[in-house]
Amino acid sequence: MKQVEFYFDFGSPASYLAWTQLPKIAAAAGARIVWKPMLLGGVFKATGNASPVTVAAKGKWMMGDLARFAARYGVPLKMPPSFPVNTMAMMRGAVGMQMRQPADFDRYVKAMYEAMFGRGLNMGDPDVVAGVLAAAGFDAAAFAALTADAAVKQGLVANTEEAVARGVFGAPTMFVGEDMHFGQDRLDFVAQALAR
Amino acid sequence: MKQVEFYFDFGSPASYLAWTQLPKIAAAAGARIVWKPMLLGGVFKATGNASPVTVAAKGKWMMGDLARFAARYGVPLKMPPSFPVNTMAMMRGAVGMQMRQPADFDRYVKAMYEAMFGRGLNMGDPDVVAGVLAAAGFDAAAFAALTADAAVKQGLVANTEEAVARGVFGAPTMFVGEDMHFGQDRLDFVAQALAR
Repeated sequence: MKQVEFYFDFGSPASYLAWTQLPKIAAAAGARIVWKPMLLGGVFKATGNASPVTVAAKGKWMMGDLARFAARYGVPLKMPPSFPVNTMAMMRGAVGMQMRQPADFDRYVKAMYEAMFGRGLNMGDPDVVAGVLAAAGFDAAAFAALTADAAVKQGLVANTEEAVARGVFGAPTMFVGEDMHFGQDRLDFVAQALAR
Repeated sequence: MKQVEFYFDFGSPASYLAWTQLPKIAAAAGARIVWKPMLLGGVFKATGNASPVTVAAKGKWMMGDLARFAARYGVPLKMPPSFPVNTMAMMRGAVGMQMRQPADFDRYVKAMYEAMFGRGLNMGDPDVVAGVLAAAGFDAAAFAALTADAAVKQGLVANTEEAVARGVFGAPTMFVGEDMHFGQDRLDFVAQALAR
């Protein structure tokens, strides 16, 4: 079966936008999505890259650019009150769901992305995250145990190292075979690659 | 008359790709292009931005990405033997043509871009530039005088400062009114803005 690998971080608004579109693109191509949660901060550290918002003029333009894409896609986009957000626990949660509760993975990702960039909640605040998890039907104590699991922690490290080894420098990054496409603005290239 | 302002540097392969497409887009919208030669190095210095190639993984991806766009556009793309290239004299030439020989401007831009990224010549070498100028019908002595003209030099500085003041951080950057669009991959937004 065809597949597209999707390296993402919940702290990346471009990854959020890609997440809103990629399932449709994959379905149209009869392809499955291989989800690859990674820690974008770790990728930045390893590659020397940095968030676009570290250049003030680029950050300002990016906000308008993301809003134009959100309008084109017909999806909500609201930036959280402070940005960037530390996503370590949330990303560990994504890896944990894949490892221990795979049936819950899609619902978990949806809850995180919709809270972070659909509603613009302050997901840097653990209490806000706890509220979002509860509303999505996740038990707080079980989630805390999941994200404290050494194998889960190591899984996130491994995904991040794998990403860097494959040439990833930002998020989202998509692979079709070894063809690497960076950015939610390259979904058309992903669709073309899947159609080949 | 509708217009799109185009801030560019001959050293930017993305600006080259945009240059191959923008005239068609402007013509389709009945808009004119306002050419804004600027010094990208000056923009980087003023904004804290840097060439994508300063992050090795990003530079590697970018080369493939540019090649995919060139294939989509059906235009040649060949990177010069060393990159980035110091474009100070070439950019002064662009400003000089606008100021002193406006009828020659389009031909001059075409000669520079086709040599730099269409054929991948070593335009960091003044002898190569001289050969390209001669082949395009420009007199070497007259060109040297043009690029040494204080008003021309100041014109390039003024364009670069104007760009930074308007929020430009890279090349190409296009304005439709005060809507700013960064990158040759945003020509669709430019076309949409011109259609409004």
